[in-house]
Amino acid sequence: MSNSPAISSVACDATSSTASGVYKPRPVTGFPEWLPEVRMIEQKWMDIIRRVFESYGFCSVETPAVEELGVLRAKGEVDKEIYVIERLHKDDQDTKDARLALHFDQTVPLARYVAQHFNDLDFPFKRYQMQKVWRGERPQAGRFREFYQCDIDVIGVESVPMHFDSELAAIMVDILRELDIGPFEMQISNRKILAGLCAGLGIADAKIVTTAVDKIEKVGVDQTEKSLLAAGLSAHQTATILKFAKIRTPDDGFVQMVLDLGVKHEILAQGLAELGAVMNALAHIEPGFVVADLSIVRGLDYYTGTVYETKLLQNPGFGSICSGGRYEDLAGSYINKHLPGVGLSIGLSRLFDFMRMNDLLPIGTTPRKCPTDVLVCLPSEDLRGPAAATARDLRARGLNVELYHNDQKIKKQLAYAEKKGIPYVWFPPFESGQNHEVKNMRTGEQVAADPLTWTLTGHYQTAQG
Amino acid sequence: MSNSPAISSVACDATSSTASGVYKPRPVTGFPEWLPEVRMIEQKWMDIIRRVFESYGFCSVETPAVEELGVLRAKGEVDKEIYVIERLHKDDQDTKDARLALHFDQTVPLARYVAQHFNDLDFPFKRYQMQKVWRGERPQAGRFREFYQCDIDVIGVESVPMHFDSELAAIMVDILRELDIGPFEMQISNRKILAGLCAGLGIADAKIVTTAVDKIEKVGVDQTEKSLLAAGLSAHQTATILKFAKIRTPDDGFVQMVLDLGVKHEILAQGLAELGAVMNALAHIEPGFVVADLSIVRGLDYYTGTVYETKLLQNPGFGSICSGGRYEDLAGSYINKHLPGVGLSIGLSRLFDFMRMNDLLPIGTTPRKCPTDVLVCLPSEDLRGPAAATARDLRARGLNVELYHNDQKIKKQLAYAEKKGIPYVWFPPFESGQNHEVKNMRTGEQVAADPLTWTLTGHYQTAQG
Repeated sequence: MSNSPAISSVACDATSSTASGVYKPRPVTGFPEWLPEVRMIEQKWMDIIRRVFESYGFCSVETPAVEELGVLRAKGEVDKEIYVIERLHKDDQDTKDARLALHFDQTVPLARYVAQHFNDLDFPFKRYQMQKVWRGERPQAGRFREFYQCDIDVIGVESVPMHFDSELAAIMVDILRELDIGPFEMQISNRKILAGLCAGLGIADAKIVTTAVDKIEKVGVDQTEKSLLAAGLSAHQTATILKFAKIRTPDDGFVQMVLDLGVKHEILAQGLAELGAVMNALAHIEPGFVVADLSIVRGLDYYTGTVYETKLLQNPGFGSICSGGRYEDLAGSYINKHLPGVGLSIGLSRLFDFMRMNDLLPIGTTPRKCPTDVLVCLPSEDLRGPAAATARDLRARGLNVELYHNDQKIKKQLAYAEKKGIPYVWFPPFESGQNHEVKNMRTGEQVAADPLTWTLTGHYQTAQG
Repeated sequence: MSNSPAISSVACDATSSTASGVYKPRPVTGFPEWLPEVRMIEQKWMDIIRRVFESYGFCSVETPAVEELGVLRAKGEVDKEIYVIERLHKDDQDTKDARLALHFDQTVPLARYVAQHFNDLDFPFKRYQMQKVWRGERPQAGRFREFYQCDIDVIGVESVPMHFDSELAAIMVDILRELDIGPFEMQISNRKILAGLCAGLGIADAKIVTTAVDKIEKVGVDQTEKSLLAAGLSAHQTATILKFAKIRTPDDGFVQMVLDLGVKHEILAQGLAELGAVMNALAHIEPGFVVADLSIVRGLDYYTGTVYETKLLQNPGFGSICSGGRYEDLAGSYINKHLPGVGLSIGLSRLFDFMRMNDLLPIGTTPRKCPTDVLVCLPSEDLRGPAAATARDLRARGLNVELYHNDQKIKKQLAYAEKKGIPYVWFPPFESGQNHEVKNMRTGEQVAADPLTWTLTGHYQTAQG
């Protein structure tokens, strides 16, 4: 499937020790790691995400990898995916201390952080968090046990302006466009709309409808119709729900389409007004990136208003790459405060690995394996001093500069630059009176240059994103 | 000791659950976390460190938090500090799989990474690594169980040019100067010098001498003299060692001082030549940051040549903040290859927390609690559209811009900016025909400004380092 220069995470069962006393290491299933050329792109992605988060004024929070097991369980999460940690040589004291476990998401740590430091934080509290999380799942293809998530949330005391619901969508669209992942679409809905519709239709158990709508893309309209009827809904109720779930508009056009269904309810009206406002606030975004899609419900009970999913248009079956929603109660398990919020999360490692496996990362045939912009050649042992000074001059001007340390033939030095994908090679004067020269390794062009004025040009300028 | 706005890691034994069903979270001892204003400075530090590492052409490597327990133990490390991880609800399969544990440093993961991906890497392999590591130590003041280390290493096949020994020192001096941690001094020696001196003096067990010299700063010269004599060294041998351990020069002057001791040995000569070359290659660094100090030996047997320690001159008792050395065999436990290298490491969390605890971080009285450069005011609900467009214009020009979302009095909006340490507040026109205006929150000055041309000035330019 892939010929990109990366490291697959495959399971190995054989023991690794050999007779020679060498412990031959193996990849650990579900814990990905990258070769330098792939890692460089992962870093670029994370730089972009951080820069955009910060461009909207969100602050970074980093929490420990570890929480008390009691904290992780307080919100009633399924705990079979939790990794607990303990000292290899535990003693009596260890059994008295609270058990510790690796966090499985960044929402529980955020809730705990906000509760614990409530008096030291300013609200609305706008934070982003980009860390690894761990899940002790059974290994299977495409499932990681360690992966990066990039979360952004706004938490308020008692309330959070609805304007954040559109702002967070705009932030994520900014990011995903810059990541260059191909065409994508963020689909937004509001859970009040379907809840209000059910109430207006006189459907007592809205949960059945929510579940059916959530699955409609997977099982198809016919199957959904059957299951709604089987659940006791009338033909009218069922038909209305199915019509509703098809509504998709690039703007607030959905409002009239829902009104045309002829159902009235206060909650429905509220949901339509909220989603309408979100879509209007996103009208400045070029068409095609954001759509109101009323079939979006998100599985989690947690969400109470706006909900978001994001699909790769060329690979919709891959599922959502960026999801979230508005919630009423962030931290009620840890503090007696009403702290609503809205948040979105990119499953970074999952998306990144998908791009890598499908050869969609911009690695190219001569990947850059290091951040070096310029390799300064060592003309000879005698000229090591001037060569080192040239490297320092270039570095002082913001360039990433490597000095070749071995006194070897120039051919060998050029081969090193080529192998590592270094775009420029610098030749300090080999004899007094000569000029400095610089060679563009892609074009082969070699010209005279001054280390005090020369700059990177073209696509190499953005080496570090 | 400290009044900086940060979070102490104190132990709590009482159970946290309360009758209300709220699980009151507590700090977990040894796992530090910071408030946003402190985290911003930690990020700035990490940005500086990364930038300097990359400016010398080193690539980033990130390894999983987890290694097989067998990998961690293969190098014969003390394993009582290891945290193992296991699934909370483990089953039969778990007991068959290899046990996993959190890495306790970045050297073992580097060795495993180089061995595992040997054929895909280019040598000399120049990598940096900035990750958290975990040690299951008993909690005590100043001891972290989770902390950042920033490592830089060069690995060669069969050999690594000695020039890297000076380059790594220059890199770390560049970084520590830019971190603005106050006066510091990197002390460099070479283990061959003391080993050769012992051989030349006819001392069979050099280990006794190494240990004594390592402790000389702590126990004093008199005590060291006594213990050397007690260990069976002659008065001449002892006197020579003590003279030797006092040698400190800012350049290669130490060579003559050692020669003057009158001891001759091939290994001694080799060590002197190597350290002399390192000091000469560092002559371009301003005086005071680097010194040859022959009392430096580093405890680890691992090192075979150059060794480094770095002291805060105003707090020498704090110990070394940046240490390392040259080693002969990185990965012999994992691969049958001769892979020597040289590396240095900053104990980031430890140093950062020391600065924080001693109020030495540039937090100030009105700390910036978010990366926002400019808060755009919301003049009124009617003018939300133009205000949002102004925020986008400023953001498109690279500024970090927050839009105030609540339609509240301007006084309240200014109070928010002040509380969060936002340096500028922007007023879009309140009526048609009016100018945009921008207020410097530090000076109070308010002037007309154009969102398409206005730029940050002065010390605010480098908000993100």
